[in-house]
Amino acid sequence: MNPDITRERQNATFDVEKLTHILDGGNEKTKRRREIEAMVFSDPDFKEEDPNFLSRSERYDQAVKKSAQMILKLREYGIADPEEIYCYKNMVLGHHHEAMGLHFVMFLPTLYSQCDPQQARKWLPLAESFKAVGTYAQTEMGHGTHLRGLETTATYDPATQEFVLNSPTVSSIKWWPGGLGKTSNHAIVLAQLYTQGNCHGLHAFIVPIRDLDTHVPLPGIVVGDIGPKFGFSEVDNGFLKLENVRIPRENMLMKFAKVEADGTYLKPPSAKLTYGTMVFIRSLIVGESARALSKSCTIAIRYSSVRHQSEIRPGDPEPQILDYQTQQYKLLPLLAMAYAFTFVGQYMRQTYHRISGDITEGDFSELPELHALSAGLKAFTTWATNSAIEVCRMSCGGHGYSRSSGLPDIYVEFTPTCTYEGENTVMMLQTARYLVKSYRQAQAGQQLSGIVSYLNDPKHQRVQPQPVAGRPTVVDINDLARLVEVFKQRAAILVELAAKSIQQELHHGKSQEDAWNNNAIDLVRASDAHCHYVVVKLFTDKLGEVSDTAIHSVLSTLALLYALHGITKNSGDFLQAGLLNVPQVLQISNRIKELLSQLRPNAVALVDAFDFHDKRLKSVLGRYDGNVYENLFEWARRSPLNSTEVHESFHKYLKPLRAKL
Amino acid sequence: MNPDITRERQNATFDVEKLTHILDGGNEKTKRRREIEAMVFSDPDFKEEDPNFLSRSERYDQAVKKSAQMILKLREYGIADPEEIYCYKNMVLGHHHEAMGLHFVMFLPTLYSQCDPQQARKWLPLAESFKAVGTYAQTEMGHGTHLRGLETTATYDPATQEFVLNSPTVSSIKWWPGGLGKTSNHAIVLAQLYTQGNCHGLHAFIVPIRDLDTHVPLPGIVVGDIGPKFGFSEVDNGFLKLENVRIPRENMLMKFAKVEADGTYLKPPSAKLTYGTMVFIRSLIVGESARALSKSCTIAIRYSSVRHQSEIRPGDPEPQILDYQTQQYKLLPLLAMAYAFTFVGQYMRQTYHRISGDITEGDFSELPELHALSAGLKAFTTWATNSAIEVCRMSCGGHGYSRSSGLPDIYVEFTPTCTYEGENTVMMLQTARYLVKSYRQAQAGQQLSGIVSYLNDPKHQRVQPQPVAGRPTVVDINDLARLVEVFKQRAAILVELAAKSIQQELHHGKSQEDAWNNNAIDLVRASDAHCHYVVVKLFTDKLGEVSDTAIHSVLSTLALLYALHGITKNSGDFLQAGLLNVPQVLQISNRIKELLSQLRPNAVALVDAFDFHDKRLKSVLGRYDGNVYENLFEWARRSPLNSTEVHESFHKYLKPLRAKL
Repeated sequence: MNPDITRERQNATFDVEKLTHILDGGNEKTKRRREIEAMVFSDPDFKEEDPNFLSRSERYDQAVKKSAQMILKLREYGIADPEEIYCYKNMVLGHHHEAMGLHFVMFLPTLYSQCDPQQARKWLPLAESFKAVGTYAQTEMGHGTHLRGLETTATYDPATQEFVLNSPTVSSIKWWPGGLGKTSNHAIVLAQLYTQGNCHGLHAFIVPIRDLDTHVPLPGIVVGDIGPKFGFSEVDNGFLKLENVRIPRENMLMKFAKVEADGTYLKPPSAKLTYGTMVFIRSLIVGESARALSKSCTIAIRYSSVRHQSEIRPGDPEPQILDYQTQQYKLLPLLAMAYAFTFVGQYMRQTYHRISGDITEGDFSELPELHALSAGLKAFTTWATNSAIEVCRMSCGGHGYSRSSGLPDIYVEFTPTCTYEGENTVMMLQTARYLVKSYRQAQAGQQLSGIVSYLNDPKHQRVQPQPVAGRPTVVDINDLARLVEVFKQRAAILVELAAKSIQQELHHGKSQEDAWNNNAIDLVRASDAHCHYVVVKLFTDKLGEVSDTAIHSVLSTLALLYALHGITKNSGDFLQAGLLNVPQVLQISNRIKELLSQLRPNAVALVDAFDFHDKRLKSVLGRYDGNVYENLFEWARRSPLNSTEVHESFHKYLKPLRAKL
Repeated sequence: MNPDITRERQNATFDVEKLTHILDGGNEKTKRRREIEAMVFSDPDFKEEDPNFLSRSERYDQAVKKSAQMILKLREYGIADPEEIYCYKNMVLGHHHEAMGLHFVMFLPTLYSQCDPQQARKWLPLAESFKAVGTYAQTEMGHGTHLRGLETTATYDPATQEFVLNSPTVSSIKWWPGGLGKTSNHAIVLAQLYTQGNCHGLHAFIVPIRDLDTHVPLPGIVVGDIGPKFGFSEVDNGFLKLENVRIPRENMLMKFAKVEADGTYLKPPSAKLTYGTMVFIRSLIVGESARALSKSCTIAIRYSSVRHQSEIRPGDPEPQILDYQTQQYKLLPLLAMAYAFTFVGQYMRQTYHRISGDITEGDFSELPELHALSAGLKAFTTWATNSAIEVCRMSCGGHGYSRSSGLPDIYVEFTPTCTYEGENTVMMLQTARYLVKSYRQAQAGQQLSGIVSYLNDPKHQRVQPQPVAGRPTVVDINDLARLVEVFKQRAAILVELAAKSIQQELHHGKSQEDAWNNNAIDLVRASDAHCHYVVVKLFTDKLGEVSDTAIHSVLSTLALLYALHGITKNSGDFLQAGLLNVPQVLQISNRIKELLSQLRPNAVALVDAFDFHDKRLKSVLGRYDGNVYENLFEWARRSPLNSTEVHESFHKYLKPLRAKL
């Protein structure tokens, strides 16, 4: 054990294990998580080479092997609870993704929810026994977010009672679905349904794409891998071009909409149910943000405690780099953010489960708010985490750039969350739509409930954008409840600003749509402020649940740092709105420095509390024992380029060069 | 040619070719650059496979081949001017780096500058004929920026007149030097010199590491590749562990310091000369920032002009995504930044050459300022570019994540500039040191000259941090000269704030060093404001050189956007200092929207003016002809995972799985 990191742990002011329980959601959860971890990490079948040493094809191969093993192991151990499966898979996969992920996340759930009874009898046994391995082919080369723009067609032919599927343009080729390129033999294809000369919009069809036995692509199917990406090397994101592919009528998923034998189209009763899945996945992504950020902070902070460099005072030994104020300023606000997002993730999961119960009982009342919240928070947390991972990486200096640090992998595997399941800017605008709508309702005298209820506040109670000197501001910058209030007022003001600006354009004769686009920058800013308020609020709320004094104290410091750092990074907003005055902003800058010093001795303990097993963190820099350098050397020596002492290029190019000169 | 992109070009209000000349630095330079481009791109010897389709070893192999070919071609074509060589290599290398780069950039230049005449006679012919291929081994596993902390030792043994080199600890293993792992047979090793029982600090030694003929590592040498990184797959960044390696006394570079046969150490006369190289390399990096950013903007803006998605007005055709205000707000300020950094890069190169002339004539007076400026601007431009590349990538939605977009490559090859040649935070603090020193000189009544002369301004003329209402502010937000002034005053105020805060701690009995570290956050902020001012100023200055009216107009709009966007992103600073008031900040937000609309029709033409050949841009999304989708499909089909229809993993894992369930 590195003596520096041991000393760090001795200096902690709180019980790390207790904080871990809070993060896991209870002692029992911690215990069960560790049992699952032990199953995976002691299992010789999951021993593997660092994927960074493998070729793309080898990585994919190893990923398929893992998928197959996990199916067997989960059955063997009888792990069936979705949260436990999620946990088990997380341990096996490390920073990476599952080649067969979409079979579980989209193919099976879609079959469960959209098959009629007869279809269920046919397809569920096939899919559950992995004879049919499937994916969900929605995105096309030319269309992602905008579903109505999808071009793939499914035209019903009553003569043979078949649908004929086609990719009529290059841009209509299905593109991106995970597992489509090489793994799947079936795809649920989303296509525009044509029957009796009319288009009825997007519907889902089960399309066999490869032979069950030989795995060779079927006639009319052009399928393959879309090529190397920034990350996701384990996953065969694929393309699918359909050339007059005929499937029986029964392959259209018919629980809701139907096409009868003669081609008559029957509309689905309601479309509200699919709404819930998106909300669920976006809520999960908030949790993914917290996890990626916690991992990154663990690596950067542990490394900063064992790395010594340069000097603060001449003649003194080289300090731990965590003693530099600039390093603290880079990392500790991110650590605070990691805690904030963890608690927001917990809240989203709980809220989703609560509202799911309501929905099952037919009560959809809270869904719009959760939908708006999950969209905005997905964007807010993924954007912030995305930048933060890179700050963590660069805070490790050169070694952060080595794949051995784990940080490049964390980054490239995480960054797609900013784009998939709803592009972030689009997400922010969805939340803005809800905020503006709520604002208008409040203006019209409706009483709002839930998290947007602040838009009810009568105007005169709320601060208007105006020069600071116009009114005295008395905010105790150490009072979290007051800071929550200040973030709330900022959100209210920015929502109002955007809504009024749209209103103004409407008065000047612009259409609703043009007015919206002309104010999109302000709308995104309003959503951002709203989400920021929610995060500060949820972090503060969480403190009320913490009874342990020492933990309450350190978490309060983190929450205060999160709030004050957020203010300095957006100080223009708060000054502009007159929510804070200039001396307060200066005071906040100084207070942040104090908080950094205060948190410094607990920094390592605070990342230890996340409790990432070394085999899960997969980072030479973030090792629990702090023995970085020896292991960096050992890792490098295993690198494939070192498998021979002399690379063939010497004999091919360098030696012959001498003769040519 | 894609009709959208054609229309974009028809709408441009200026002559693209003329702007290209300005960016290149004159018609003749454009002409010569294109000649060099044509040599490379028409040369069948440089035809290559996309490196993203190759393994690490194949990529390295291809890179060594290129290095050897370039040596021969440059001689064949008689290209000897350093700028032309730089240009030629840029075209050959694309986004990637040269395996043998350090031989040219560090090994040869060090031999030229630090060999005594006898050493020059021996080593220059060896190095120039590539019998000796070398690198520069300074950084160790445990030490980067802080040179005094390096641990490698070179102990003189008068008995045999040899130096004995050792890596006494794991952390002293040389780590990171490019070309060290596999390519080089020599290294210039920086080591602590011990002779006659005393340590004389860091000196340079020529160490043979591999056999000239067999390339096998020599006795006592443990050398290899440090393993895969985020990028730089072409380069064999290496490690070197020295175990009692003996080299003759003559292998110490002796132009300045010397060790005589009996072990007597002779001090070097002065250390000022190496200073210049760092300045030069950091100035070059400012240019690299401009180039990486220009490439990224070219890709994102061209793609945004051919990609159609969703709808602004219901029923209308899907708009080009560049018509969304949010997309313009992401990309056009970055485009303005690309122009700003290009002109800053030009300025730095010119200034360096001017001051180099002075230095040759013994006049070092301007060097400290250029040193401080190059450090800060290196950090300022690389940080900004680093984030900007990722904004460009994500603005391309999912396709930006594909390696075919070129953006992942641009990012991973560029991001190390934030760390190497001086870690950015350290650089910012170096600039701050100069600023605080200058501030104190001004306070002491000295008259400052050069770019920091604003610190002379008598206090009462300068605005103090105070509530806005205290004084009226009249700034025409469309007057660039006034905006330069405002940025200058912000810098002055932040330098003063940091300097005063340090002063205060000194008064309270803190040591100079602790006071410095306790204010490091503010010092970095002051440097950042100083650099920001310099960039706005240099962009504005450049406009004075542009005579073409149409180009002057569009560049002025870009400069204004750069300045105003910088203000809104730091509005807290300007409000806090009373440099702008609240109505003005609101006015600026609205003005930015107008500028976006104004620039929109010229966006494609403005990136065309950078004149990146498709073969240099290597981006399916950024193609000049805009034919993105067909080429995306074609690129994907060449991916190695598609070389077989059925991946072996199906037979190994998926099919057997069915039987096990």
